[in-house]
Amino acid sequence: EQPEKIPGYTYGTGEAAVSPLTLEDLEHLKAVVGLTRQDEQVLTEAARVLADQADDMVSAYRKRLGELPFMHAYSGHPDGTPNPEYGAASKPRFDRFIIDACTRPLDQDWLNYQHEIGLRHTRIKKNSTDHADSLDHIPMRYLLAFTAVVIATARDYLAADGAPAEQVDRMHAAFTKSVMLHVTVWTRPYVAAADW
Amino acid sequence: EQPEKIPGYTYGTGEAAVSPLTLEDLEHLKAVVGLTRQDEQVLTEAARVLADQADDMVSAYRKRLGELPFMHAYSGHPDGTPNPEYGAASKPRFDRFIIDACTRPLDQDWLNYQHEIGLRHTRIKKNSTDHADSLDHIPMRYLLAFTAVVIATARDYLAADGAPAEQVDRMHAAFTKSVMLHVTVWTRPYVAAADW
Ligand code: HEM
Ligand code: HEM
Repeated sequence: EQPEKIPGYTYGTGEAAVSPLTLEDLEHLKAVVGLTRQDEQVLTEAARVLADQADDMVSAYRKRLGELPFMHAYSGHPDGTPNPEYGAASKPRFDRFIIDACTRPLDQDWLNYQHEIGLRHTRIKKNSTDHADSLDHIPMRYLLAFTAVVIATARDYLAADGAPAEQVDRMHAAFTKSVMLHVTVWTRPYVAAADW
Repeated sequence: EQPEKIPGYTYGTGEAAVSPLTLEDLEHLKAVVGLTRQDEQVLTEAARVLADQADDMVSAYRKRLGELPFMHAYSGHPDGTPNPEYGAASKPRFDRFIIDACTRPLDQDWLNYQHEIGLRHTRIKKNSTDHADSLDHIPMRYLLAFTAVVIATARDYLAADGAPAEQVDRMHAAFTKSVMLHVTVWTRPYVAAADW
């Protein structure tokens, strides 16, 4: 899908939030996750392997969350009943994230859109993009906990093209760092500036 | 090292903080990280592989952080100069965490001590256990970002005994889930209850 055609996907536009972080903050976070130039190169290779699988990956994540009744009200209606319109509206943006996480340069547009994604998980902006009727806030603990699923399940997708084990290791390590970098930045709206 | 001999290690004692979480909260978090009974079994196997390496792992983490000058004041003195007494005092507890993360039952004592570890990264309790002269708070973003290093570097340690690749995969996935579960619970003191 052409990203500019995805409804609500405001990456690189003036409609996205403005990140409170500086590019120096970003350099520090990259250094702490250990993301190197080699990782950035390897991520472009990972993008080629994942491009055709992003849709399946996100469907698998949602299936996992769908098996947990206490999670239903965050993606369904507030009473936990299904909200397929909301799921359909937000899915192309989530799919796009898989590729973006492997290919986007880490610049001001990146900072801004990651802040936007963080906000869209909180009561500041959840539901508004898709005018959805759903709980208005995803607790931070579930965002973080679910990161384990995204990271642990990535290995099989990265191995799907039959790359040698050492290359799968490299892609998996780089993807792990990238996902943690993204999710870390998404937590900014959840925490007081002095504590974050 | 016998855990009961590690100074400041109050796991399972009345000196540890009391967690604000319930065992039901814990069940939900386990479900979201996807930690299964099989993972818990595999973690006991991982513990055997990691037992002799925990000290090296933590030394390697610290070496990484030592290469980042903007991180020095959190483990050194507030001006960033080295504080080897603080490092030496806290290291056995960090080493012990590697084994605990693979072996401890997920019960009330676990909840309490994880809350204690979280507090010890924040201005509520950092420095107090070791009477250390150091910055009094580790920003949450660095705690989360560094999780990528702990997870990504674990693979080689888990492979060190020459286990078959599929077993390394299983141990790595289980370790990833366990680390994310721990770090998630550690973030509780950083975030308002309604947002966490
Ligand atoms: C590591 C874990 C997670 C990742 C990588 C992730 C990723 C994303 C992405 C990329 C989007 C689209 C943002 C946009 O461009 O608009 C999104 C939106 C959303 N996510 Fe997550 N998410 C995670 C955890 C969760 C969890 C645990 C839930 C719980 C149900 C959840 C529910 C949602 C919902 C409902 C939306 C739509 C938000 C809106 O109303 O705009 N996510 N997520
Ligand atoms: C995933 C990342 C991290 C893990 C797994 C981790 C783990 C631990 C553990 C297990 C302890 C000992 C707690 C206790 O039993 O007293 C500890 C303490 C400590 N950690 Fe971390 N930590 C992480 C991130 C960081 C970062 C980024 C820093 C930054 C320098 C840091 C600095 C410290 C310090 C200074 C202490 C001593 C705290 C005190 O004064 O009691 N940690 N950490």
